[in-house]
Amino acid sequence: MKIAVLAPVAWRTPPRHYGPWEQMASNLTEGLVEAGLEVTLFATGDSLTSGKLDAVIAQGYEENRNQDAKVVECLHISNLMEKAGSFDLIHNHYDFLPLSYTGLIKTPMITTIHGFSSEKIIPVYQKYNSRGHYVSISDSDRHPSLQYLKTIYNGIDPSGFEFKETPEDYLLFFGRIHPDKGTAEAIQIAIQSNKRLVIAGIIQDQEYFNSRVAPFLNADIEFVGAAGPAARSQLLKQALALLHPISFEEPFGLSVAEAMICGTPVVAFNRGAMPELIKDQETGFLVSNVDEAVAALEKIDMIDRKTCREWALGRFSQETMVKDYISLYHHILTI
Amino acid sequence: MKIAVLAPVAWRTPPRHYGPWEQMASNLTEGLVEAGLEVTLFATGDSLTSGKLDAVIAQGYEENRNQDAKVVECLHISNLMEKAGSFDLIHNHYDFLPLSYTGLIKTPMITTIHGFSSEKIIPVYQKYNSRGHYVSISDSDRHPSLQYLKTIYNGIDPSGFEFKETPEDYLLFFGRIHPDKGTAEAIQIAIQSNKRLVIAGIIQDQEYFNSRVAPFLNADIEFVGAAGPAARSQLLKQALALLHPISFEEPFGLSVAEAMICGTPVVAFNRGAMPELIKDQETGFLVSNVDEAVAALEKIDMIDRKTCREWALGRFSQETMVKDYISLYHHILTI
Repeated sequence: MKIAVLAPVAWRTPPRHYGPWEQMASNLTEGLVEAGLEVTLFATGDSLTSGKLDAVIAQGYEENRNQDAKVVECLHISNLMEKAGSFDLIHNHYDFLPLSYTGLIKTPMITTIHGFSSEKIIPVYQKYNSRGHYVSISDSDRHPSLQYLKTIYNGIDPSGFEFKETPEDYLLFFGRIHPDKGTAEAIQIAIQSNKRLVIAGIIQDQEYFNSRVAPFLNADIEFVGAAGPAARSQLLKQALALLHPISFEEPFGLSVAEAMICGTPVVAFNRGAMPELIKDQETGFLVSNVDEAVAALEKIDMIDRKTCREWALGRFSQETMVKDYISLYHHILTI
Repeated sequence: MKIAVLAPVAWRTPPRHYGPWEQMASNLTEGLVEAGLEVTLFATGDSLTSGKLDAVIAQGYEENRNQDAKVVECLHISNLMEKAGSFDLIHNHYDFLPLSYTGLIKTPMITTIHGFSSEKIIPVYQKYNSRGHYVSISDSDRHPSLQYLKTIYNGIDPSGFEFKETPEDYLLFFGRIHPDKGTAEAIQIAIQSNKRLVIAGIIQDQEYFNSRVAPFLNADIEFVGAAGPAARSQLLKQALALLHPISFEEPFGLSVAEAMICGTPVVAFNRGAMPELIKDQETGFLVSNVDEAVAALEKIDMIDRKTCREWALGRFSQETMVKDYISLYHHILTI
């Protein structure tokens, strides 16, 4: 089976530090290659894959700002579309724009919807409702007006996330520094719990960082910047708990799944996909506010870190994701 | 001959006040219909045409800001591309994105390049250099790396621009209020010439308006806001001269041609297409700075307003433009 995987070109695939969509395009591609499929990854020229790489854009538009994102994306997408006839199936991880080319090609396309940046993009998904073959990354992220083939959770390669039974004594915030992700709330939770906090992630909202994060940094509230794969695994596995006090309907939450694979429980605000990701009281706590998070942390020792890992491996492994997608490919090619 | 004209969807076609690309898509469509071609105009739903209108977007994204421009444009463009087989030829007035679909359709497409918003968009034009069938709107706007079929100047319907032999005693600035267009320089020219100035146009740069325009407004420097077709014709034909002190390589300059059709000479900074639009010393003056513009205005009476009109009608009429495009269509369909 010849598959074209269309990755975003914001970042390299896999990303150096941040880029969850690119990460998933990579995890899937590598898993498909291992499963014996013939896979061409359409991504930036500096991307790494054991499949075949096809690139017309040297670097991601977030990594080389001397490019126009709109230009880069239409060159990247049209490059694949013009070669559509060489593939049995296209797997789109690039948001809505590729859908608008699918009326002009014969090769079927599956679209994993990694999230809706705005309600305003829904009309494109609606137009291609049957042709788009949509996959949701959580049940919570499904839009009521769209048809989905299946929910397939993001799958993580566990070899990158070692289990650690005995953590160190710090809490971890891991994610973009942005109000959505609740960096400021994480700081409040740590202060009220009288615990050390490590903050890792790219600064996506500099103003927020300056006003809500920077003033609190000290020996106990430490900002370590963006963490690449090796540092991420270390930070996650050694943490007493991951704090995830989000203020938006997060469609998935990669770091939540990755933390649990390391054995680290998660204290999260109960929004978006969190109830699908976390088994409340068993792999962490679903809470509503800072006070509840502080209370939950007092009971964090009751969480068995082995249970966290088993739960997460069962639901969020690369192996499961790849198997699910391959069976979907067969389904699409026979209908 | 069945032609699809792809207009932008920033504004209505024709525009209510501002929208030169939409204006040209309209002028061309109406002229083609009159010439007996079967024309479908792809534009916003509120557009007006004597051809057939095909619209999936009710209003332009500049007129209804509750839309995502990227969403609107891909729905609009794909709507045409999915119907490409119904047309002998597509005439693209919508910048570079439609090019990226042309590898997937059989119908040939002509692209009128109305201007390059940035050097960063050139790679798309380069990729589709042969398939795009490019037309430049002035020789000066040609990019050295691109192949062009022809330069065809924007064509104006003269019925909308009455000739006036004896002007009133004011200078006119007509265009977007933006540093590119030199509103501030026009004010300086008027002050130093001791003449009244009327400023008409949409405010595209509010900060610039606040700091460089608003402080100078008084009984002699009047801002009248955006001017629709009727007001535009009045303002242009009664002016002693149009001031066009641009600070960018303007690819054409509709108001310059429209002014001359009314008989109004133009004093312009000698950049972009200005030497193609204005016959120096005969239909206006090509100058380099404010002082030269002031000196030119002292000689404005030597310009014969009839010569302005004749010159402009010969080069910038809708009739000429339509004839040139039709012969290009025949050329494309026989190669």
